[in-house]
Amino acid sequence: MRDVAVIGVGMPKWGELWDKSLRDVFVEAALLALADTKVDKLDNMLIGCMSGGLFVGQEHIGAIMADYLGQRHLAAGRVESACASGGLAFRCAIAEVASGMSDVVLAGGVEKMTDVSGDGATYALAAAADQEYEVFNGATFPGLYALMARAHMEKYGTTRDQLAHVAVKNHHNGTKNPNAQYPFEVTLDQVKNSVMIADPLRILDCSPITDGAAAVIVCPMEMAKDLTEKPLVKVTGLGQATDAIALHSRQDITTIEATTVAAKEAFAMAGKGPKDIDFAEVHDCFTIAEIVVTESLGFFEPGKGGPAVEAGETARGGRIPINLSGGLKSKGHPVGATGIAQIYEIVKQLRGDAGERQIENAKVGLAQNMGGSGASTLVHILEVA
Amino acid sequence: MRDVAVIGVGMPKWGELWDKSLRDVFVEAALLALADTKVDKLDNMLIGCMSGGLFVGQEHIGAIMADYLGQRHLAAGRVESACASGGLAFRCAIAEVASGMSDVVLAGGVEKMTDVSGDGATYALAAAADQEYEVFNGATFPGLYALMARAHMEKYGTTRDQLAHVAVKNHHNGTKNPNAQYPFEVTLDQVKNSVMIADPLRILDCSPITDGAAAVIVCPMEMAKDLTEKPLVKVTGLGQATDAIALHSRQDITTIEATTVAAKEAFAMAGKGPKDIDFAEVHDCFTIAEIVVTESLGFFEPGKGGPAVEAGETARGGRIPINLSGGLKSKGHPVGATGIAQIYEIVKQLRGDAGERQIENAKVGLAQNMGGSGASTLVHILEVA
Repeated sequence: MRDVAVIGVGMPKWGELWDKSLRDVFVEAALLALADTKVDKLDNMLIGCMSGGLFVGQEHIGAIMADYLGQRHLAAGRVESACASGGLAFRCAIAEVASGMSDVVLAGGVEKMTDVSGDGATYALAAAADQEYEVFNGATFPGLYALMARAHMEKYGTTRDQLAHVAVKNHHNGTKNPNAQYPFEVTLDQVKNSVMIADPLRILDCSPITDGAAAVIVCPMEMAKDLTEKPLVKVTGLGQATDAIALHSRQDITTIEATTVAAKEAFAMAGKGPKDIDFAEVHDCFTIAEIVVTESLGFFEPGKGGPAVEAGETARGGRIPINLSGGLKSKGHPVGATGIAQIYEIVKQLRGDAGERQIENAKVGLAQNMGGSGASTLVHILEVA
Repeated sequence: MRDVAVIGVGMPKWGELWDKSLRDVFVEAALLALADTKVDKLDNMLIGCMSGGLFVGQEHIGAIMADYLGQRHLAAGRVESACASGGLAFRCAIAEVASGMSDVVLAGGVEKMTDVSGDGATYALAAAADQEYEVFNGATFPGLYALMARAHMEKYGTTRDQLAHVAVKNHHNGTKNPNAQYPFEVTLDQVKNSVMIADPLRILDCSPITDGAAAVIVCPMEMAKDLTEKPLVKVTGLGQATDAIALHSRQDITTIEATTVAAKEAFAMAGKGPKDIDFAEVHDCFTIAEIVVTESLGFFEPGKGGPAVEAGETARGGRIPINLSGGLKSKGHPVGATGIAQIYEIVKQLRGDAGERQIENAKVGLAQNMGGSGASTLVHILEVA
């Protein structure tokens, strides 16, 4: 396969964007990514979007976005793996380039979640779980992650405080992110006393409902120097896996097997292990998710993810900073866009271009993006070229 | 890029499958495709599905299907380009294999359309048009294709009889397809006197609402001989393009530019032209669509598609047989599955394994799959290896 570089990234401010429609939100991100390169014409475009149908009644996302981006005749499609749709778009774009089928490919992600009324967003998101065996019986995502949290607390002694520390850390990181939906600090007490959603998870343990998009542009490494003036970033590891979609069919709900399998694949391809990763963006859709995922990725032993966040090992300046962007928790979680926004943050850090969020010696970054209650995961490793 | 072979194909009977859910329909097709090879474990799976969300409230299609197919941890995702979702799944699977990222990949397509009530299917399908500028103002797909038909009739003198000939031919072909939803003959008079849907299109000008799935398995050509005992089929041409999603933004609604662009790309890659194609499966969602598409592909000059079908040039035994499978018209149109079912038919013909439908000297076949009113198209050329 051809080596693949990321030559452009774009992400506008996320939030409740009531003055913009799905197409506006996406096109803004795509134009920012194009402006970050010397490219004006794309060869292909793949867009992660979880449910254009249920959120805004619009499918055929590839064609509509190519149209509104002003790229007439552009080959364009949409991919979906629930909240891992962005990660899947990045992988499919890499395959287009690595195969030689396309040269310059935009991988984007978008979701417009605030236009539905009543429990519309909860219904749409639940379509990422098993509709027939989980949702029909009343399960929603806070409930599913609450089950995982309870099991993790029982098995490993993970504490309510440790969960809260994830939110406190990520909101602190988010204060340095001008694109974050909720760039404010929260305290341990605020998290622990916020309104109960699904015991033990409270509202400040949950990522928000968000409108937003992000876009990155990839091309063959040998073309990259001619297409951007920015420092080059190379994709060195890819991994993808699924697991039983329903929580009741998993072998162990205190770990995310799909993440472990995908990470092993990505590490093997990159010739690296968890200790070689300088920083990571992981899928903290709920506070418990970040704790479980940092264990499943091999950053910490099973049961040690909670103590690690409490001890500041995953904070800025800690052993392995996690979610310097603010994570889904503070930055927001427009589900289809999240995986691409992770790549955005990693590229910014590797370029030394992350502004107030910049850490020192960012040479190897990892992105972990997952769908549903962990039934699908994509892991990508990126390095300074 | 690595050369790619199709080593297995599977397609069960299509229809109103009220005794099966989305997952049952897909898994049946995938198991048939696996049984057509010597493979029991896949490396990746990409599934075309237009709107699991609007039709059955289920997204996260890749993970759920990997789970129910019994392939634990399989990398799996879903792709969407409206009614061209199957074609896009085939392309993405080819990219996985051609790049070397995966070896054995299943490309599938599925849709369960009959579980919605009232105008649910019409609403879901309309999500393939421009929701804000077309659908909001009352447009549905029969109406959009009726506009194209009227314009084509005005500009080229295409007749009501010529439209009907498409339906008559495809239903005749469908009588030889045991998997077709409506494998019965229709007469010219029946088509012309059937109930009016959107003038000039009558119900027998329209493809039906269908539950169904299809699956094909691809791998690198150099591995193909070891993985199947069937005659080898090679993918020699790929093309993909989009156009303005809304009909009112097109330069000319009597042609499908996305198809013309995608076809040129596929022909160039295969080193072939329209005259080198022995037979084709094209996207006859409405009778007018087949006429326009056969022109846009370059099989006939603009305005000559109608006379060609009337003269039998696209019939079995004609100059270039179109839709030997029965097409969307007789076989059915489970939107996400259609593009893969086209590949199924082409592989069957190239192998000499199409039963009663088999034509002589089938060496080069072309599949054209499009989304919406033609805003996206995928073209694939397959040949006997």
